[in-house]
Amino acid sequence: MRPLLLAAFAFALLPPMGDGVTPTDSPRFRGQDLVRPEGHDRWPVVCTSIGLSYAAPMANDGPGAFHRVYMNPSAYETFKRTGIFPEGTTFVLEIHESAEKTSIARGGFFEGKRIALEASVKDSKRFRSGWAYFGFANGALASATPNDDSQCHSCHVKHGKIDSVFVQFYPNLRDRR
Amino acid sequence: MRPLLLAAFAFALLPPMGDGVTPTDSPRFRGQDLVRPEGHDRWPVVCTSIGLSYAAPMANDGPGAFHRVYMNPSAYETFKRTGIFPEGTTFVLEIHESAEKTSIARGGFFEGKRIALEASVKDSKRFRSGWAYFGFANGALASATPNDDSQCHSCHVKHGKIDSVFVQFYPNLRDRR
Repeated sequence: MRPLLLAAFAFALLPPMGDGVTPTDSPRFRGQDLVRPEGHDRWPVVCTSIGLSYAAPMANDGPGAFHRVYMNPSAYETFKRTGIFPEGTTFVLEIHESAEKTSIARGGFFEGKRIALEASVKDSKRFRSGWAYFGFANGALASATPNDDSQCHSCHVKHGKIDSVFVQFYPNLRDRR
Repeated sequence: MRPLLLAAFAFALLPPMGDGVTPTDSPRFRGQDLVRPEGHDRWPVVCTSIGLSYAAPMANDGPGAFHRVYMNPSAYETFKRTGIFPEGTTFVLEIHESAEKTSIARGGFFEGKRIALEASVKDSKRFRSGWAYFGFANGALASATPNDDSQCHSCHVKHGKIDSVFVQFYPNLRDRR
């Protein structure tokens, strides 16, 4: 059995979605606070970038940090099929220091120590702007309060290519093969 | 149900492994040729790097390409639990051009067009050196012949930190949390 069939088989055993029943990888809340997702390292990764910034870099800036974005599997399958982010879509952002000149690597950069763990969730009933953004103090917090819209959403909503998401930087969503 | 529980539930429905029964995400061969893995974009990503090279870069070199490495889920679970790569471990390497200055990004790099799709497999019975390495012409080939050991394995076996694998560059295997 192939992985996709396996996934289909597993989901077939679960209650149907789309009528108020939540899939198993849906975000969990305590009030407005998001419970830190577990096992996100098993989720599909939609992009990695390094040093991405919205201001011109200075000449002596280093390479910057790696950003790696994971997406919950049920929402990933829906987006690949429809191009729409369903309610409950969850992205997890890991930020890693860039590391270099280790072992046989003499040029280039790889992901060093993790320095941040954040998430965003689409929940139009819970959040006025549709999406909310959370920081988990690099995993130290078991749950997190939504950031103010001015911190993240104001830029996402203006520049994110599809539904406030920066799909233009995400090869696994941008190239929907 | 959490994703990990779901995975455990799905695997519980399958035949047991470890006694000659292969898990569902095992590599498939035609003779010595590896059939191109399907759905690897749903597999865990163990690392991303940019421009990693084993020679000192020249001053006018660009940032280089992004390398993104996926691992088949059953082997990932085994490694996280034991620190050992089981027979059938499969890595898929995607290489993406580095892209920049798109949309609001004025600094840094993100993954552009995919330019290569490769894989490595551990199969000690099939391959004398334990591991074999394959190129799929960026996905154009449905199956691929093993590369000569001198092309990949000779370096992997010498410098890969664990069992010919460059775990030193792979945060999701290096930091076994």
